[in-house]
Amino acid sequence: MAEKSKVLIIGGTGYIGKFVVEASAKSGHPTFALVRESTLSDPVKSKIVENFKNLGVTILHGDLYDHESLVKAIKQVDVVISAVSHMQLADQDKIIAAIKEAGNIKRFFPSEFGMDVDKANTVEPVKSLVDAKAQIRRATEAEGIPYTYVSSDCLDGFFLANLVQPEATAPPRDKIIIPGDGNVKAVFNEEHDIGTYTIKAVDDPRTLNKTLYIKPPKNTLSFNELVAMWEKMIGKTLEKIYIPEEQILKDINTSPFPNNVALALNHLTFVKGDLTNFVIEPAFGVEASELYPNVKYTTAEEYLVQFV
Amino acid sequence: MAEKSKVLIIGGTGYIGKFVVEASAKSGHPTFALVRESTLSDPVKSKIVENFKNLGVTILHGDLYDHESLVKAIKQVDVVISAVSHMQLADQDKIIAAIKEAGNIKRFFPSEFGMDVDKANTVEPVKSLVDAKAQIRRATEAEGIPYTYVSSDCLDGFFLANLVQPEATAPPRDKIIIPGDGNVKAVFNEEHDIGTYTIKAVDDPRTLNKTLYIKPPKNTLSFNELVAMWEKMIGKTLEKIYIPEEQILKDINTSPFPNNVALALNHLTFVKGDLTNFVIEPAFGVEASELYPNVKYTTAEEYLVQFV
Repeated sequence: MAEKSKVLIIGGTGYIGKFVVEASAKSGHPTFALVRESTLSDPVKSKIVENFKNLGVTILHGDLYDHESLVKAIKQVDVVISAVSHMQLADQDKIIAAIKEAGNIKRFFPSEFGMDVDKANTVEPVKSLVDAKAQIRRATEAEGIPYTYVSSDCLDGFFLANLVQPEATAPPRDKIIIPGDGNVKAVFNEEHDIGTYTIKAVDDPRTLNKTLYIKPPKNTLSFNELVAMWEKMIGKTLEKIYIPEEQILKDINTSPFPNNVALALNHLTFVKGDLTNFVIEPAFGVEASELYPNVKYTTAEEYLVQFV
Repeated sequence: MAEKSKVLIIGGTGYIGKFVVEASAKSGHPTFALVRESTLSDPVKSKIVENFKNLGVTILHGDLYDHESLVKAIKQVDVVISAVSHMQLADQDKIIAAIKEAGNIKRFFPSEFGMDVDKANTVEPVKSLVDAKAQIRRATEAEGIPYTYVSSDCLDGFFLANLVQPEATAPPRDKIIIPGDGNVKAVFNEEHDIGTYTIKAVDDPRTLNKTLYIKPPKNTLSFNELVAMWEKMIGKTLEKIYIPEEQILKDINTSPFPNNVALALNHLTFVKGDLTNFVIEPAFGVEASELYPNVKYTTAEEYLVQFV
């Protein structure tokens, strides 16, 4: 077996970055995390960094906005994975510039971890997020940087932990609000699995210059199927309130940030069906559970059952 | 009375922009809204634009990312008010560049409409938002563009409509979750009032190169005061669950976007007290309800009582 690539994660202390760093370190990749010195004064973030160190991760001090620090970090590794937050998406042009200057990177994973932005039918405010990601894709391609785009669709922690009942702390037991008619298929993935699949792709020639779609069949479900699954678990039928698209579009416009973001994400996912309304062609994509059948991913059912 | 300045609003169909456009048109300012052609294909946004036209607003087609269109629009007016969304905050450097080229602008209002970003003690992901706004302030000042920064603190529609119970659709009647100890003072403003005060400032020399703080005394309240007010209205005592700062910081880190944004906004508002932990010095700021005592603003109490 060939030596495993050295991996740098930028944005590693973020929500999804943590899982990528952990998966990288546990799978035996020499793993590096770029961390701002200011991050260490945050009590929660500093604990995350401590945990990284315990896993053998090398902490590099630096900043997306400090070009020299970025180039220096990138020169030490083979692969760069960005998991920067929504606010920094556009600023990934700084990573691209640093990768170009460093000249040694075999693969770049820009910060994606959502829907395939090239297949999106979104409205604002999500459209801006999608456009920012697409722009970084085009810039990566234009520079001839080898890439993999990880499309991981809905995060279980955001969508399943409360069955898409905005910010409820558990799935509902009386009534449930369903955007659209509930028949559109979406995809739900557990965060550790997203980290695992991402790291599997790092040295895999089959994911080179492709989108890695994480769409395991058991996690590809309509809202109605999810609700039926939950109803069976709790042995109870819920009152279902379907919200027509027209109302959702109105609500997006009359809700302040950040609520409008959550509503617009629901719109593209459960009304437009952007996660499942295309076929993955070998020319541009591969599916993770097919590529790595040995990964025992968490199914939506296994995730949901913990809340019974 | 001098002729009223011509006002251009960029981001006028957005959540807060709508109220600014409406206030401008109704107060007799020749009012212009920059609207992307693509916006008109959105059924909800196109209705907002129709409403603007009915109010006598001149719709200019253009785009933040189309420099020529921006310069052309700016050349037709005296004052530019930006109400672009959180995703476009950093891109306001394009507005600054266009204002510089046009050379005729008497006042620029960058997109603010929140806390005073120069007084912020924020954690991510809100820190990035705050930094982006601060950066645009510094760029505006560096270019010598006359400005007013509107600091309007908490929006009633986001904070009062559900008494800060995330995404609940009404204030609670049984139990209430309170970030911190509930004693920190915050400020709550109704959206029409924010539009009204903003437009009042347009031609006012007292707001030139100053921050206009919208902090009416009756809207400056602690969370505990708000809850007491609500309890009195509904004639019932709520169970109160206080969340310590340590827990909130953890929750911010373990919640995906956009929930982490809402939690971090609550943290700075109700734990750090960033909205009220400073004195407004005449050197940098003026308070709106003092400056315009004739404006009959909506008090927090008047806003809340509609939900009884």
